Amino acid sequence: MDKLTIVKVGGKIVEDEQSLNQLISDFKSISGPKILVHGGGRSATAMAARLGIETQMVEGRRITDQQMLEVAVMVYAGLVNKTIVAGLQAKGCNAAGFTGADMGLITSVKRPVKEIDYGFVGDVIDVNTSELRLLIAEGVAPVIAPITHNGKGQLLNTNADTIATELAIDLAKFFYVNLVYCFEKDGVLSNPDDEKSVIHDLDKELYQQYKLKGIISEGMIPKLDNAFRAINSGVYRILITNARNLTKPAAVGTSIIK
Amino acid sequence: MDKLTIVKVGGKIVEDEQSLNQLISDFKSISGPKILVHGGGRSATAMAARLGIETQMVEGRRITDQQMLEVAVMVYAGLVNKTIVAGLQAKGCNAAGFTGADMGLITSVKRPVKEIDYGFVGDVIDVNTSELRLLIAEGVAPVIAPITHNGKGQLLNTNADTIATELAIDLAKFFYVNLVYCFEKDGVLSNPDDEKSVIHDLDKELYQQYKLKGIISEGMIPKLDNAFRAINSGVYRILITNARNLTKPAAVGTSIIK
Repeated sequence: MDKLTIVKVGGKIVEDEQSLNQLISDFKSISGPKILVHGGGRSATAMAARLGIETQMVEGRRITDQQMLEVAVMVYAGLVNKTIVAGLQAKGCNAAGFTGADMGLITSVKRPVKEIDYGFVGDVIDVNTSELRLLIAEGVAPVIAPITHNGKGQLLNTNADTIATELAIDLAKFFYVNLVYCFEKDGVLSNPDDEKSVIHDLDKELYQQYKLKGIISEGMIPKLDNAFRAINSGVYRILITNARNLTKPAAVGTSIIK
Repeated sequence: MDKLTIVKVGGKIVEDEQSLNQLISDFKSISGPKILVHGGGRSATAMAARLGIETQMVEGRRITDQQMLEVAVMVYAGLVNKTIVAGLQAKGCNAAGFTGADMGLITSVKRPVKEIDYGFVGDVIDVNTSELRLLIAEGVAPVIAPITHNGKGQLLNTNADTIATELAIDLAKFFYVNLVYCFEKDGVLSNPDDEKSVIHDLDKELYQQYKLKGIISEGMIPKLDNAFRAINSGVYRILITNARNLTKPAAVGTSIIK
């Protein structure tokens, strides 16, 4: 089997022109088959504000109503995705942008309403990479926006970490998948006040301990739950790091250990 | 060689939910390999207005400044393209949306400034369908948004008729290409006041006569110039008609004759 690198980058990196250009250079220089999954984050919120659409938040989480979904599709699948694709093409990387709707790549179901109605948010139920693998074999680097569909014509907003995870799990049947979640720190920290306190190897037991102590909390928990799901589902290697470490020869960051 | 149908639809059809749904049904029912090229038209102008961006017009043509380009990318490559793709997927048609930047499909050059600076508008200089043909062979139906790139990272707004024409000419090396330009009438009219006066066969000589008489004018001229360029460049069959005639067994509309 070949190696395949899947890089997930968050909204912050793609919002800023300089960090986006750096990412494009770094991603381009990764050898072998590769996929970029991007978030969109606050760029959609900013666009919504310009359109006079109020962002509804419940318990710190954004609610995707019809208007916000349209903005997310425009910004993530349109502006952000195609800006990255054109930037990669300019560097000689044969990128192609997709959402989960394209080629039926990722099907999701609208999140069931329990305490909170998240609106048009999709939870992934199916991944079909057959056409994507054909393109990868031709040297195409897919760039995936965090939008999926329900197979019945409805587009849905889907977390980019989840998309990267689900793609990695499916593609692990065909490749040794290196999954790299990039964020603004060098890795998961054992002391939130010390940027250098990167945990180099994190296994499930250590993860539970850090969670109990409250050292790992909030946004890191769904990210790490995704990461452990991936490592237990055949993904070869998982790293959580800063995007600036992408091209470093040795793995810098937090490796997830089975 | 196989038959390949390329359908170009304008902005008006995709702006209205009912006509868009009809188009999706009709396009889905076309047998064999097929490509849909869509415009965006006034939906970008409407979005720009909501964002407080003024649409600059010079001699009836829209100028694409930086802000308008961003809106065009969001609306055409984002909202319109992915809405069509999700709609086709729901009908069991394995659609995938692309711009000219994706897989380096269509490279253009920013239109040189002569009397008018059109801004970020691209004139097509190169078409590369190698990856697209692989996907078509797998049963994928590409859906193309009217956005191209210059190969140096710049996205550019490009006329959808031109995109359909250039794709048809390139793909004519590999397929018997049926190119169908859809618009709001049943065909080119010999009497603009009589919707039933459709010219069934239009050759270059007749075209010149109608132009001289002023019967064919304005927006039809670039469309027909594109059509004659296509018929003289190997495209098998060209029809100008209303989208509602797409599924009629016999060709209804204006056929372009070499």
